[in-house]
Amino acid sequence: MQAEIITIGDEILIGQIVDTNSAWIAQKLNEIGISLSQIKSISDNKLQIIKSLNDSFDQVNLILITGGLGPTNDDITKSTLATYFNSPLKMDHSVLKHVESLLKGRNVSMNELNIKQAEVPENCKVLHNSCGTAPGMWFEHNQKVLISMPGVPFEMKMMMEHEIIPLLKQRFSLPEIIHKTIITHGIAESTLAIQIAEWENNLPNCIKLAFLPSPGIVRLRLSAQGDDKKQLKNTIEGSIRPLREILKDAILSEDDESIEVIISKLLINNNKTLAVAESCTGGNIAHLMTLVPGSSAYFKGGVVAYSNEVKQSILGVMELLITEKGAVSEEVVECMAKNVATILGSNYGIGISGIAGPDGGSLDKPIGTVWISVYNGLKLVSRKFQFGDNRERNITRASIAALNMLRLLILEDVQKK
Amino acid sequence: MQAEIITIGDEILIGQIVDTNSAWIAQKLNEIGISLSQIKSISDNKLQIIKSLNDSFDQVNLILITGGLGPTNDDITKSTLATYFNSPLKMDHSVLKHVESLLKGRNVSMNELNIKQAEVPENCKVLHNSCGTAPGMWFEHNQKVLISMPGVPFEMKMMMEHEIIPLLKQRFSLPEIIHKTIITHGIAESTLAIQIAEWENNLPNCIKLAFLPSPGIVRLRLSAQGDDKKQLKNTIEGSIRPLREILKDAILSEDDESIEVIISKLLINNNKTLAVAESCTGGNIAHLMTLVPGSSAYFKGGVVAYSNEVKQSILGVMELLITEKGAVSEEVVECMAKNVATILGSNYGIGISGIAGPDGGSLDKPIGTVWISVYNGLKLVSRKFQFGDNRERNITRASIAALNMLRLLILEDVQKK
Repeated sequence: MQAEIITIGDEILIGQIVDTNSAWIAQKLNEIGISLSQIKSISDNKLQIIKSLNDSFDQVNLILITGGLGPTNDDITKSTLATYFNSPLKMDHSVLKHVESLLKGRNVSMNELNIKQAEVPENCKVLHNSCGTAPGMWFEHNQKVLISMPGVPFEMKMMMEHEIIPLLKQRFSLPEIIHKTIITHGIAESTLAIQIAEWENNLPNCIKLAFLPSPGIVRLRLSAQGDDKKQLKNTIEGSIRPLREILKDAILSEDDESIEVIISKLLINNNKTLAVAESCTGGNIAHLMTLVPGSSAYFKGGVVAYSNEVKQSILGVMELLITEKGAVSEEVVECMAKNVATILGSNYGIGISGIAGPDGGSLDKPIGTVWISVYNGLKLVSRKFQFGDNRERNITRASIAALNMLRLLILEDVQKK
Repeated sequence: MQAEIITIGDEILIGQIVDTNSAWIAQKLNEIGISLSQIKSISDNKLQIIKSLNDSFDQVNLILITGGLGPTNDDITKSTLATYFNSPLKMDHSVLKHVESLLKGRNVSMNELNIKQAEVPENCKVLHNSCGTAPGMWFEHNQKVLISMPGVPFEMKMMMEHEIIPLLKQRFSLPEIIHKTIITHGIAESTLAIQIAEWENNLPNCIKLAFLPSPGIVRLRLSAQGDDKKQLKNTIEGSIRPLREILKDAILSEDDESIEVIISKLLINNNKTLAVAESCTGGNIAHLMTLVPGSSAYFKGGVVAYSNEVKQSILGVMELLITEKGAVSEEVVECMAKNVATILGSNYGIGISGIAGPDGGSLDKPIGTVWISVYNGLKLVSRKFQFGDNRERNITRASIAALNMLRLLILEDVQKK
């Protein structure tokens, strides 16, 4: 089963935004056995949209469109679809109600443009946009399907997951596909590829492997396709067993979840709390931890000790220690980890200090040098990392490395019990 | 002048990587007056590549291809182009020399796959790849141009900047395009659209307007195309003047920059420092501020006071105040803003507390209620916001709202001087 994605919006064509939606949609479609033959980005132009739809319908049975559904004049996807499918716009009262309640919740009063967002082509099935005002649309056309989604990533994602994926599974007869994602940490993609090459070569034919790298993390996605779901599950499980032997501690999780969610679960399950003292990561670890709903149950808080004065005044790191060892040193991060846990009254503490770049590097501490310490109330585990020269990536990689050190320490503590 | 980009590679179509190349190339082309009518991502498949080339040559005079130039068997772009242009591959000895010296520098010995990389179609112009082994190629075809580049981002970027852009300027007579982006804050997209509708209708024909919304922010992009750069600049400037009157304080910036960069510039230019006390934003404001390179010059640090104990122990908020007024109250955020500036020794302080959701809401303080206070050493400015019910969006919107309140306070202070 083949599909095409069409992303509509001038902002992509002038390079103002990077199209991250398509990769995400591609992954989700792959999971249910739909593969993409093409992704196209085109402008907010009626003739071009129509030409593009014709071309795509010539090639595939399923087209997914994102973008161009906003309330303003430059957004013309909906009116173009109404023309294309020869289906006049009419008011959808349940959409109107939703838009109304959404705006009320945001304390914004309803205007004529919002009201127009609740109009949809007569012959489409409306797809509920739980977090936005632009409804999605599902059209049936000569046995083929066209789906129009908003371009705002989180709106599109909610709609894909809750509305579109279930409907696609009903509408098309798709093969059984089972995916299992193994999250690895600390091994570069190319090294990992060599390390597991023999294992990969011995995978059964029904299993496909994909490497999905992001800073600090490589996700290995195994996909098995066939007719018998149970058998596929067994085949995957059988393939993962030897992988566990090869990768050991480098496996963060065998579920597709983020490191902050892994840590949250570990803390909740063991009834423990965390506090963080961050220098180079500048609050990113606290930010990641508090993205998880309910984090106030186990996350006490943190200190972003960006200047040395703060390391001294709030965290009680001795000035002499900083002068003698440097702000980026084992001794200083250990003091930060220990003191933040003590002062904030948490079971675990993280201390982190490094040179994120682009400035501040020296010969013996080049850009990308990061010291991390984790503390459990009794002992400290500390490690030095050497990341690259990209500030944003360094912040991300250092944050993940710190949370992974904490994960290993919590696991050690749990096993001792 | 119109062009199309074709990115070739299965890894894009299965969502393994996000195509960041196209946005970058689009920006560079825009700067020299070439606009894109389409971006296509297709797989490493000979027939699809040929079909795609034919389609694109029907539409535009310039095609830029990335990807599929690697040494392995799955990379077929070069051989496909040789077939397409009916131009057999031959060894290019200067490319061979370059590949040889490059591999020597990497301590890798030359193999037959590397040698094959130095073969190029007879009738193409070779584009030097200063950082990689795959040469770029420039084909002339019925008065039209096709350029093939490697998919590795930094190789492609070097080739674009040093080889392709200068050649394009020579080869085509190009119009001028000028973009100007106005960043607005605090007005929903649809409200903004109505507010500036009359202004928009009176825009000269040579100017196109686009709305680019993201949580808390709407960017307005004006694009003017013509022959005379100076005249276009004047036309844009003339159009922005009345917009300033309409939007006033809602304009964050007239450059395409983020709120954290705007704040950084304000702090640097006025030689001031900042500290933040965050509850519901959980370190996100500190994270945003420290994403900016060089932020240690003006960002002292922050306290993520996620639990009430931390608000009391580190920030010195009285327990009684929290009990009487609640952790999400004007009094508490004022105390947080004031004390964090005092304790961390900064000129400005931010205090923020709210209910990010999904839990924790009540009748008089529903999810999305956020109190923010900013402090300049003398006075406090405090405001209550009511955001929505999405945790991640609330964190983003509250962070931007706080930084905007700080921006207005700094501007007020500057004007007083």
